Amino acid sequence: ANSILSSYGTTIFTVMSKLAQDHGAVNLGQGFPEGLEPPAVLKAAAEAAEAGPHQYPPMTGIPALRQAIVAHDRHFYGLDLDPEAEVMVTSGATEALADCLFGLIEPGDEVVLIEPLYDSYLPIIRRAGGVPRMVRVEPPHWTLPRDDLAAAFSDKTKLILLNSPMNPSAKVFDDDELAFIADLVIRHDAYAVCDEVYEHLVFDGRRHVPLMTLPGMRERCVRIGSAGKTFSVTSWKVGYVVAAPALLAPIAKTHQFLTFTTPTCLQSAVAFGLSQPPEVLDHLAMDMAARRDRLADGLRGIGFEVMPSAGTYFLTADIRGVGFNGTDADFCHHITVEAGVTAVPFSAFYQDRAAAPSHYARFCFAKLDSALDEAVARLGRHF
Amino acid sequence: ANSILSSYGTTIFTVMSKLAQDHGAVNLGQGFPEGLEPPAVLKAAAEAAEAGPHQYPPMTGIPALRQAIVAHDRHFYGLDLDPEAEVMVTSGATEALADCLFGLIEPGDEVVLIEPLYDSYLPIIRRAGGVPRMVRVEPPHWTLPRDDLAAAFSDKTKLILLNSPMNPSAKVFDDDELAFIADLVIRHDAYAVCDEVYEHLVFDGRRHVPLMTLPGMRERCVRIGSAGKTFSVTSWKVGYVVAAPALLAPIAKTHQFLTFTTPTCLQSAVAFGLSQPPEVLDHLAMDMAARRDRLADGLRGIGFEVMPSAGTYFLTADIRGVGFNGTDADFCHHITVEAGVTAVPFSAFYQDRAAAPSHYARFCFAKLDSALDEAVARLGRHF
Ligand SMILES: CSCCC(=O)C(=O)O
Ligand SMILES: CSCCC(=O)C(=O)O
Repeated sequence: ANSILSSYGTTIFTVMSKLAQDHGAVNLGQGFPEGLEPPAVLKAAAEAAEAGPHQYPPMTGIPALRQAIVAHDRHFYGLDLDPEAEVMVTSGATEALADCLFGLIEPGDEVVLIEPLYDSYLPIIRRAGGVPRMVRVEPPHWTLPRDDLAAAFSDKTKLILLNSPMNPSAKVFDDDELAFIADLVIRHDAYAVCDEVYEHLVFDGRRHVPLMTLPGMRERCVRIGSAGKTFSVTSWKVGYVVAAPALLAPIAKTHQFLTFTTPTCLQSAVAFGLSQPPEVLDHLAMDMAARRDRLADGLRGIGFEVMPSAGTYFLTADIRGVGFNGTDADFCHHITVEAGVTAVPFSAFYQDRAAAPSHYARFCFAKLDSALDEAVARLGRHF
Repeated sequence: ANSILSSYGTTIFTVMSKLAQDHGAVNLGQGFPEGLEPPAVLKAAAEAAEAGPHQYPPMTGIPALRQAIVAHDRHFYGLDLDPEAEVMVTSGATEALADCLFGLIEPGDEVVLIEPLYDSYLPIIRRAGGVPRMVRVEPPHWTLPRDDLAAAFSDKTKLILLNSPMNPSAKVFDDDELAFIADLVIRHDAYAVCDEVYEHLVFDGRRHVPLMTLPGMRERCVRIGSAGKTFSVTSWKVGYVVAAPALLAPIAKTHQFLTFTTPTCLQSAVAFGLSQPPEVLDHLAMDMAARRDRLADGLRGIGFEVMPSAGTYFLTADIRGVGFNGTDADFCHHITVEAGVTAVPFSAFYQDRAAAPSHYARFCFAKLDSALDEAVARLGRHF
C-alpha cells in the first residue's frame, strides 16, 4: 500500500460521527447543517433526476451551471469569468482541491499552509509530491504571523493553500492580511489555491473577500466553492473551481482522470439554486449566526470559554473552563460517551498532534435549535 | 503545472463528442447508451433527491447500497463479501481506479498493463509514481501474449490492471487466460486491479468471470463495478470497489481524501436497482447484442471489415475496407465532418500512438436503433 496515504487514519469526522451514532449522542462534530435545505432546490434535483439527461455531461460541467457560477461570482465579487475557459464543476470541493494539488504540484514543490487546517490538505499535498511549509495562527485572535509567513515562502514555493473563512478556527482573513498574502504570492511568482467553501457563512455584517479579487491576483488564484455548503446539501458533492485559463487547464486535466464528470441532475439543481435571487444566500448567514449565538451562549452558561466565530459552521470552546483536565481527544470521547454530545478535538487539525493546542474542542452549530438546546442541556447536566 | 498530467491532452471522448456536436454528427464515439435507463430506477432517484437525507453519507457508502452490492456479487459470482470491510462506493469507476492506483502504488512500483487500454490508466499510474510495463493483445483475436506477459512481471510488480470485458478491443478474457494471469499474480506476490465496468455487457451466452473468483485470488483482487454502465446512467457517477479488508483499507484512505463520499440520492437509487430481480441485467446484454449486430451488419454492408465484439459497448472496424487511406484519426475526423457520423480512432488507446495500429475505428453501438440506422445510412451514402 502507498506509505503516505496509509499512514493517515480514518478522518476524524468519520470517527467522531460513528462514535456519536454508537452512543446516541447529539452530533456537533462533523460539519453538516440541519433543516436548511431549500425545498425548491430539492424539487429541481428530483425533476432532473427523473427527466434526465442521464448520460455524461461535458467534462467541465453543464453550461447552465457554469453560467450560473459566472453570474454568482459577478454579483458577489465583481469577477468577470469566462464560462468556457475559467469555470469547472467538480464532485465536491474535496475533489476540487485534489484536482488543484495533483494538477499544479510538481514533486519537490513547496506548498505553504496555515495551521490549524482541514484534514485532507496534508495527505493530498504529500501524495502529490509537495513539500509542506507550515505556519500557524494562534488563538484567541488567530492573527496572521507575518514574519513566519514571509519566511515560509521561498523560490521553491509553488502555491499557498488558503482557507478563508477558515475551518476550524472560524477566522475570516481581513483585508490587510489578504493584501500581505497577495504580495508574497506575487513576489514569489506563486499561486494561491483558495478553499472558500464557507464563502456564504460570514457573520456580523462582514463579507467574504476572495483573494482572487485583489490587485494582481486574478491570474494567480484558484477559487474553490461548494454547493454542498452554499445550499446546505453536503451529500450532493457538487463543487467548483474558477481560475484563469492557463491555471485551470492542468486542473481540468486532473479532473478528467480523477472523476471525469459530476452528476447532471445535481448540477441542474445547483444551477437552479444559483439562479434564485442572491438575497437567499444572505439569509443563510443570518440564520447561522443566530445558531452560533444560541450555542455559544449555552456553552458559556455552563462555564466554557467560547472563542469568537467570524464564519464557517464552527466555534471553539476551551475545555478547561468546565474543569476538564485531560486532552481534547479525551474530552471529545468523554462527552460523547458520558454526556451524549459529540465535538471534534481541535488538535486533529494539526500535522503534529503532540505539538498542538490540546485544550480546545470544535463544536458545529449548523444544527436545529432543538439539537443545540439538547446538547447544551446534556452538557449542563454533566458538568 | 504538473508535468505528467499536463502532458496529456483533453480526453479523446470529449474531443470527439465536441466535434460531433459541432457538426451535427450521429455520435458513435464516446461510450454511453441511449434509451435504456430503467424508469423505476430513475423514479427512485427522484424520490430520494426530494426526500433526503441530504447530508454526508458514510464515507464508504450507504449501508443499503453496500448490502445490495454484496447480494449482487453473491448472486452473479458466488462471492461472499463483508459489507462493512470489503465494499466501498465511489464517485464513478474512474474515481475507483484513481483510489486504487494512488492508494496501492508506491513510487517505483511496476504496474502491468495490456494495450490497447482506457485513456485514464496511464496518466494516473504515472502521476502515482508507478512504472508502466506494457504488453499488447493484437487484432483480430486479441489473444493474451503469454510470454510477453510473463516477462512483464518482475519482483518490482505491484499490480496488474486488468480490464475485462475490455475497452476498446471488445475482448472478454477466457478462463485459461484468467488462470494464466492469476498464476503470475500469485507467483509475483502482486495484486490485480480489475476494471469490470462492462460485467453485464457480455454477449452470445458467455458470462463474465471476475478474476477475483479464481483460486488464490480472493485476497489479491480489487473488483471495480459501475452503476453507470449497469443501469445505463453514465452521468450518475456511482461506482464501487470490492476487495479484502487489508487491500480495501489503503484504497478507502485515498477515497476519503479524493472525494470523501458519493451523492446519497443516487446511491439509494442504485441500491433499489440492484434489489430488483437480477434477470433484468441479463436483458441488458441481449438488448445490446442486438444493437451490436445491427450496427455490424450495417457497416459490413458498406464494405467495412468488422471485428468480433464479445462484450462492452464497442465494435472495431477496419477502415481500409471502404478504401480509406489516411490514418484512423483522419478517418474519424473525416466521417464526422463529411458524413455526419463520429467514431473514435483506435490508436488513441495506445501509449505511443505512432506505434499503434492506425487503420481501426471504434464505434459505440449502445445507441437507439434509429441512430444506428441513420449512421449506417449516412456512411453508406458517403462511401
Ligand atoms: C468531509 S466531512 C467533514 C465536514 C467538514 O468540513 C468538517 O467537519 O470540518
Ligand atoms: C469517460 S467518457 C468515455 C466513456 C467510455 O468509457 C469510452 O468511450 O470508452
